[in-house]
Amino acid sequence: MSAIDEDDVIAEFFAPLAAEGADGLMDDAATFHGGEGDVVITADALASGVHFLPDDPPGTIAKKALRVNLSDLVAKGAEPFGYLLALALPRNTERGWVAEFAAGLAEDQARYGIALLGGDTLRASPDGGVTLSVTAMGRIPDGAVVRRRTAKVGDWLVLTGTIGDGALGLLARSGRPELASLDASERAALSERYLVPEPPVAAWSAVRTHARAAMDISDGLLSDLAKLCRAAGVGARVDIERVPFSASVRAAIRSAPTLRDVALTGGDDYQILAAVDPLKFAAFQRDLVKCGVAASQIGSLTAGSDVALLERGHPVTLGNNQFVHF
Amino acid sequence: MSAIDEDDVIAEFFAPLAAEGADGLMDDAATFHGGEGDVVITADALASGVHFLPDDPPGTIAKKALRVNLSDLVAKGAEPFGYLLALALPRNTERGWVAEFAAGLAEDQARYGIALLGGDTLRASPDGGVTLSVTAMGRIPDGAVVRRRTAKVGDWLVLTGTIGDGALGLLARSGRPELASLDASERAALSERYLVPEPPVAAWSAVRTHARAAMDISDGLLSDLAKLCRAAGVGARVDIERVPFSASVRAAIRSAPTLRDVALTGGDDYQILAAVDPLKFAAFQRDLVKCGVAASQIGSLTAGSDVALLERGHPVTLGNNQFVHF
Repeated sequence: MSAIDEDDVIAEFFAPLAAEGADGLMDDAATFHGGEGDVVITADALASGVHFLPDDPPGTIAKKALRVNLSDLVAKGAEPFGYLLALALPRNTERGWVAEFAAGLAEDQARYGIALLGGDTLRASPDGGVTLSVTAMGRIPDGAVVRRRTAKVGDWLVLTGTIGDGALGLLARSGRPELASLDASERAALSERYLVPEPPVAAWSAVRTHARAAMDISDGLLSDLAKLCRAAGVGARVDIERVPFSASVRAAIRSAPTLRDVALTGGDDYQILAAVDPLKFAAFQRDLVKCGVAASQIGSLTAGSDVALLERGHPVTLGNNQFVHF
Repeated sequence: MSAIDEDDVIAEFFAPLAAEGADGLMDDAATFHGGEGDVVITADALASGVHFLPDDPPGTIAKKALRVNLSDLVAKGAEPFGYLLALALPRNTERGWVAEFAAGLAEDQARYGIALLGGDTLRASPDGGVTLSVTAMGRIPDGAVVRRRTAKVGDWLVLTGTIGDGALGLLARSGRPELASLDASERAALSERYLVPEPPVAAWSAVRTHARAAMDISDGLLSDLAKLCRAAGVGARVDIERVPFSASVRAAIRSAPTLRDVALTGGDDYQILAAVDPLKFAAFQRDLVKCGVAASQIGSLTAGSDVALLERGHPVTLGNNQFVHF
């Protein structure tokens, strides 16, 4: 960072985003009050050329970095309140890039009611691109955190929102021929979802109240479901026809049926997968709808350790179309 | 990361380091109890080729990443308890590298009584080196955090340990001719200090009890002192002959007197600079000595905003030998 000075950047772009306990980012560290409950904390990082493209709009990179962390808090039933950011910038980064990046943070801070507690701005490793790490925190009453390992045989599997938009959005951004038959607005909708995921952040209270176990979907529905099952020592059955796809994803699958496997195994959706007592499903769904989040029952947890995919009751196997980071 | 699998690496090397609330790193997020006091939180990141050399021993990189954060907590008077780590690794990273890195973390966890709460392992930006971000947390009674801006005119400036070892250590590692006249053990001592700083972590209680204001020295004594002065709206005078140098730094300065300026302005020492009521200095020093930390009074805070350097009472100006990251 020679074009821009670290202290200047912090004072101009990041200090206005600071939480009260961060003392204007003019000190070594921030404070927040411990409080009676538990603090839930998570850290996820993104690297240019791995999790986003170098020419993605800076504001979308900022939002993605926040949201991939907020989805973890929501999955645990925690109400997000703050975050720290470590931002490594290549030497020739323009001030305008940082300004747009900070504007993206500001928009999501307002949207989600969170504030910046601190962090670091540093020069990126030579020849490497932007790398950024966010640590996000939320609050929850003592012992109320929603785990993965607490899922039980017989629980229903409930998914928020739709799945596959992130993975197909990456294909759309890469100009892949399988998506050529979609109209421009459908491709744009997918690309947008890859750029800026839409985790159901408002759902934290519903998850805490009704879910027996939950996780966020970052590495793909089936791969993450397998992790939930391993953590809980259970198996699962998923009814493919119940898995919620957006209109754009449905259109993509109609034009290239193998894309269904990509949607089921692709990453970057940041929706919530919850294990719910069937008797609580209606109340969970009602509370989710109240905060604008759709919920679909896509299957249930079973004894054993197998994750079975069923289509109209018949077992199916996925082809070899799985999602790989570019 | 194709040579090593992210989930395997977490299970094998990082899960054994996990704190109780981290659930074996098998969940989306960790929890810790809020508690009655405040939580102090800080994040600092390191990039290969900027803050360490690509062929530095992995264990020393791990320790440096932890310690540059612990020094921030100590400066605020907080007792460290946990940290999160986001570790971006180039694609061809060897398992042995990660094993040595994790062993370094384990040693410092045992030394400082901290544990891993979570984080992320990711592939580094293509062509970039290792980049790692640590978020560290400590506890402090409500409102007891030691700030920068609370320093007052008349306070004594107190520095822990010695200064300049980090900056001259970088020169020693780079084989600079100014250090050719040192003997091998002196050069090794300096290099070692650059590789693995020795912040006075045990001093957190003494800092909390006796310091009116404090910060850690990461960017160089004079530059950081200027920040403390700006935050507090005061000036300072520093008596150069009181500034504590190690035997190796003294030897280096004897052989090349301009290196004194490097020691005064260089970074990477991670010692604590405190503003202390003169009436409390003796008690502060006594408590520091109890935990094995040396303390030197190097000057005092003055009205105005100038930072004056004095040598035997006469103002001096530094030459143009200031420290620049390689």
